[in-house]
Amino acid sequence: MVGGGLGAMIGGVHRIAARLDNRFDLVAGALSSTPETAARSAAEIGLAPERSYADFREMARAEAGREDGIEAVSVCTPNHLHFAAAKAFLERGIHVICDKPMTATLEEALELARIVAASDALFVLTHNYSAYPQIRLARDLVAQGALGPLRLVQVEYAQDWLAAPVESKQAAWRTDPARAGAGGAIGDIGTHAFQLARFVTGECPTRLAADLTSFVPGRRLDDNAQVMLRYASGAKGALWCSQVAPGTENGLKLRVYGETGGLAWSHETPETLWFTPLGEPARKLRRGGPEGTMAGSRVPAGHPEGYLEGFANIYSEAADAIRAAQAGERIETLLPGIADGIEGLRFIDACIRSNAAESGWVEILP
Amino acid sequence: MVGGGLGAMIGGVHRIAARLDNRFDLVAGALSSTPETAARSAAEIGLAPERSYADFREMARAEAGREDGIEAVSVCTPNHLHFAAAKAFLERGIHVICDKPMTATLEEALELARIVAASDALFVLTHNYSAYPQIRLARDLVAQGALGPLRLVQVEYAQDWLAAPVESKQAAWRTDPARAGAGGAIGDIGTHAFQLARFVTGECPTRLAADLTSFVPGRRLDDNAQVMLRYASGAKGALWCSQVAPGTENGLKLRVYGETGGLAWSHETPETLWFTPLGEPARKLRRGGPEGTMAGSRVPAGHPEGYLEGFANIYSEAADAIRAAQAGERIETLLPGIADGIEGLRFIDACIRSNAAESGWVEILP
Amino acid sequence: MVGGGLGAMIGGVHRIAARLDNRFDLVAGALSSTPETAARSAAEIGLAPERSYADFREMARAEAGREDGIEAVSVCTPNHLHFAAAKAFLERGIHVICDKPMTATLEEALELARIVAASDALFVLTHNYSAYPQIRLARDLVAQGALGPLRLVQVEYAQDWLAAPVESKQAAWRTDPARAGAGGAIGDIGTHAFQLARFVTGECPTRLAADLTSFVPGRRLDDNAQVMLRYASGAKGALWCSQVAPGTENGLKLRVYGETGGLAWSHETPETLWFTPLGEPARKLRRGGPEGTMAGSRVPAGHPEGYLEGFANIYSEAADAIRAAQAGERIETLLPGIADGIEGLRFIDACIRSNAAESGWVEILP
Amino acid sequence: MVGGGLGAMIGGVHRIAARLDNRFDLVAGALSSTPETAARSAAEIGLAPERSYADFREMARAEAGREDGIEAVSVCTPNHLHFAAAKAFLERGIHVICDKPMTATLEEALELARIVAASDALFVLTHNYSAYPQIRLARDLVAQGALGPLRLVQVEYAQDWLAAPVESKQAAWRTDPARAGAGGAIGDIGTHAFQLARFVTGECPTRLAADLTSFVPGRRLDDNAQVMLRYASGAKGALWCSQVAPGTENGLKLRVYGETGGLAWSHETPETLWFTPLGEPARKLRRGGPEGTMAGSRVPAGHPEGYLEGFANIYSEAADAIRAAQAGERIETLLPGIADGIEGLRFIDACIRSNAAESGWVEILP
Repeated sequence: MVGGGLGAMIGGVHRIAARLDNRFDLVAGALSSTPETAARSAAEIGLAPERSYADFREMARAEAGREDGIEAVSVCTPNHLHFAAAKAFLERGIHVICDKPMTATLEEALELARIVAASDALFVLTHNYSAYPQIRLARDLVAQGALGPLRLVQVEYAQDWLAAPVESKQAAWRTDPARAGAGGAIGDIGTHAFQLARFVTGECPTRLAADLTSFVPGRRLDDNAQVMLRYASGAKGALWCSQVAPGTENGLKLRVYGETGGLAWSHETPETLWFTPLGEPARKLRRGGPEGTMAGSRVPAGHPEGYLEGFANIYSEAADAIRAAQAGERIETLLPGIADGIEGLRFIDACIRSNAAESGWVEILP
Repeated sequence: MVGGGLGAMIGGVHRIAARLDNRFDLVAGALSSTPETAARSAAEIGLAPERSYADFREMARAEAGREDGIEAVSVCTPNHLHFAAAKAFLERGIHVICDKPMTATLEEALELARIVAASDALFVLTHNYSAYPQIRLARDLVAQGALGPLRLVQVEYAQDWLAAPVESKQAAWRTDPARAGAGGAIGDIGTHAFQLARFVTGECPTRLAADLTSFVPGRRLDDNAQVMLRYASGAKGALWCSQVAPGTENGLKLRVYGETGGLAWSHETPETLWFTPLGEPARKLRRGGPEGTMAGSRVPAGHPEGYLEGFANIYSEAADAIRAAQAGERIETLLPGIADGIEGLRFIDACIRSNAAESGWVEILP
Repeated sequence: MVGGGLGAMIGGVHRIAARLDNRFDLVAGALSSTPETAARSAAEIGLAPERSYADFREMARAEAGREDGIEAVSVCTPNHLHFAAAKAFLERGIHVICDKPMTATLEEALELARIVAASDALFVLTHNYSAYPQIRLARDLVAQGALGPLRLVQVEYAQDWLAAPVESKQAAWRTDPARAGAGGAIGDIGTHAFQLARFVTGECPTRLAADLTSFVPGRRLDDNAQVMLRYASGAKGALWCSQVAPGTENGLKLRVYGETGGLAWSHETPETLWFTPLGEPARKLRRGGPEGTMAGSRVPAGHPEGYLEGFANIYSEAADAIRAAQAGERIETLLPGIADGIEGLRFIDACIRSNAAESGWVEILP
Repeated sequence: MVGGGLGAMIGGVHRIAARLDNRFDLVAGALSSTPETAARSAAEIGLAPERSYADFREMARAEAGREDGIEAVSVCTPNHLHFAAAKAFLERGIHVICDKPMTATLEEALELARIVAASDALFVLTHNYSAYPQIRLARDLVAQGALGPLRLVQVEYAQDWLAAPVESKQAAWRTDPARAGAGGAIGDIGTHAFQLARFVTGECPTRLAADLTSFVPGRRLDDNAQVMLRYASGAKGALWCSQVAPGTENGLKLRVYGETGGLAWSHETPETLWFTPLGEPARKLRRGGPEGTMAGSRVPAGHPEGYLEGFANIYSEAADAIRAAQAGERIETLLPGIADGIEGLRFIDACIRSNAAESGWVEILP
């Protein structure tokens, strides 16, 4: 693991997700850019001291040279380090599981794509929400034509934790352009919303018009974005992300409407997917229940699974893919990867360009 | 009553709303522009034959001349007739309760404002959703500063009844520019969403950027609109209205966020208003329950009231205002009126202008 | 109308319900047993003074003698007067629409049945909850075998308004054995729950075991009841009613389970009926929506109807039945009547007997 | 681990729960009473072959003799083996984490209490639902008097997976008196509901009256139970458990009402606890949110945690207790244990006695 030391939130999530299905052992880390924090974090987590590194490049070098060196690495640093860390390991043939947004800039993202293409190692991006079983079911329904040709995509991701100025390790880097990249809310949560809609619909919008705001005085990155979307197919959409909406928690919601049916999903009840064929009653499709599968499930319907289990699906599927790769095979998976990462950075970049151009329509895709 | 004959939907609603609190007797009507339908409708409703008119101008003239002539008239024709009908009665001193959108064009709306100003009669616009008790409570909370300075307004109104081509009296005029005016969904339901947000927040947005679509082949008016909003105060917002979203019914939803609190309301559960002060648990404020009033309520909390009761609040408050006016007084009410009507037409007009200008920002207010 | 004077709650409900569909005019009343209150109530409601009576027997006599005398009467007094009032009008051939519980004692109920049988007039009991469209749909689904043979009936009705000692006109008579009859919560709301379950299932339980409690010190009637039910068919059930459950409002809920399907309905969202065929996803059946009818509806799906509209369905169907009776016909209706009233009193009586016998099983049906 | 081999459901749950917070390594097992299945299960899970045992007594003996022998054992066999397995390990000083119901009979439960008392090892019973953070918050609110003196406890646990005859490993032993013990639904899920209510209220009911049913033809144990409860404090309650309620999944619900407030919790949304002080609006208390703590949480509010995380709380708290015990200390925990197990068996026993006595009241506590 790179990053994820004491005081980090998402590092702990990655560790649980990796462990949940017993597919990974955590044996080495560069857990902090502060050597002392790295060492203390490693001790707390139980790493052997000799495999706790003060620097991820050193870690990549050392682990690549060990007989029992790591097979894969989790990158969960602030955004500005994703590129360098991923590069260091990919270039040594070590599989990378990386948090999002993939890089700090679109240029880095495109460069990373070249590195991934040149490497034998896999690159997985933890857009964890796309691994909820009911989200995968939604994707299947769309792909099977259950909604007919798509017309509308409404997606939103609302939080309230940055509604007032916040002093915390989590908040500090996310609101600092030097560490978060050019996007605030659009990078941290907007990319999740964007990827979720793209994953379910199978379509990436081609143009957007965005209105970005920093509501909290002194904030240097956006904490709210209104975005209108257009698709090549003629579908349209809207994306709203906010970190200043009091009363919301981690409010990711997706609704997709086609000519003959509609879908609705909310993160507050992630095990329920609403599916309404036009002219029929709404059906409550439940994880593990009728008209679904047990894929990506651990316990029967009605025993709530949640965020960590969804995140673990990414890790466990990555383990499958890594084992296959080690055997010289590429298996089909639904894992988000380099293409999603590039689209995410294109999304951020397009939002910023549109916002600078008085919310005019700009191209997302080249 | 003008309009509302056999086969109409909203005419029946107006009649129930007027009757519910026993404040009006329906005694005369020009219920259809087709004389034969007008007569049959009048007979079915129980009007005296001599007070069933084939033409609303004739009705205005005749009733104004009767000793026992009507005191007020409901106008619930298709939109293109609102102006002429309202004018006919207002100019004879008969109070007008008119459906929305107020007129077919902004020019008519501005002209109607002059007529209202010159008349002793009252003009009430049936933006019924603003008369739900919990919506009025929401307005009070905002006005009292319970949310702090406002930042965000998210409002939407989604239906699915026009997702496929529809052959019905309701659908025919609403999708015909000659009868509906220039707006389709934006006129029929967008104006409701716009007024609801404006009523609760006390602020009218000053600029918007709109993307209008007619998804159903051959449809001549918009059936979906994405709109971004900006307020003079610095607040921002989004409005989505659609008539092609399968699985939605009459899905009006409003969320308002300020610096220190948030509100959420959904028409599917109109008696619940969610209020969350930042950093406190969400409170479920119920019609007739604690932290509310019984104003606009007929039965205790937990005995569901709904659409017709909210609509009746408009009629009953109009009755209060009419009685006061007859006594030479003007009472304070929350009734929507000419100003709301003009704002609604400005909203439609601005949507169309922005859409024509590649979704660029346009002024709503002069 | 008999009863329902100033300060009464349910009288106003009856008046709105009668008026909503424009099927009744209220022209006479004995609105209070206190003559002065009766007169003031009549004036406020707008009755002609000569048709405001100080006594319901006098009213029955006088109205029966008028050319334009009333055709039907609403009885909404406290329970102890239902019998005498209903009797007075039925014996003069005036149709009676009576609130529940039907009478104060089972003996009165049985006597009333004889009076009804001997009268040409109709007797309707306002078990209004059974007139919700989705409750009628539930009944249809059961009758059509959509659940298979029934196994379980779980019904409850929870309120909190009597959780503390209450001083109000509503509370005073409901907690007074002399006016409410032998049942407190079981009479006031338990009979509603009992009738609702019986209406939907088509089966009346034959035995019950009850545990009644008066939680509030000094209260002379039950304010809570736990009841176990057994049906002749082998089905079983439970009924809980309470007026001391803080956080509940008017919480009537029904769940019915058969071999091959289940239904769930809650009064908080009366327009939704959940139907789950075993092994299929739950379906959200909405008033006015797919797989339902518009019977008993006034406005399309998504425009909430509620308590008053459900209550109005009773009145409007009663109007149909009365018109038919006047034409010498008996039409099929779903109106609750004398049989429901007797079952309600048998339920109360059985609860009291079981409770007195250490919650032993007792017969409900003779 | 004892039990939990291939095809078992709950064994996998225990393994994830133990692993989630990285507090346990699974190193030995007697995973099935069929030696061949035990061996295959061990291989699949990754146990060293020499630590896969065909018999739990052999395992207890062997592991107790190893330098690196297990410190604790999970017992997740069918119920009839719990006693013997727990005994085998406790008597060798190995800590036991045991599934519920604790034993097959009350006699075994009482005997196990003696064994636990005589052992230095800890005994933990996996009543996992009591480890949900919002359930622990509910317990705190009751203990702090937020509800006032308790009056009512309504608890239910409804499933539908046994609504029809089922052929599966899970179903086979749960419906077999020889392996499940004397209780069917009351043992499998009724004990959970009973313990949950007891945990939150801090009170064990003293008497009950039960009506047990086996609805599915040929079923030898109850698949449905209606139970009325009485408490020494004067509170009353009802417990319903069913495995034949189509449309329910794993529907555990608890409502507790006192003189001055009420609580409601449903397993379908385990992160929400509804708290209503009498006369105030309902408050939606969320895991990790305001008025709660992060105890027992891994991720911030709005990132759903569920069943496995709740179950893991038991394991992780057991790890704390075991570490303390190894240091010669007893720490305060909320872990369910031998007392809960005995109460559970008393509950089963009382249900069966009451049912045999025509649902008469019987004592639960001695």
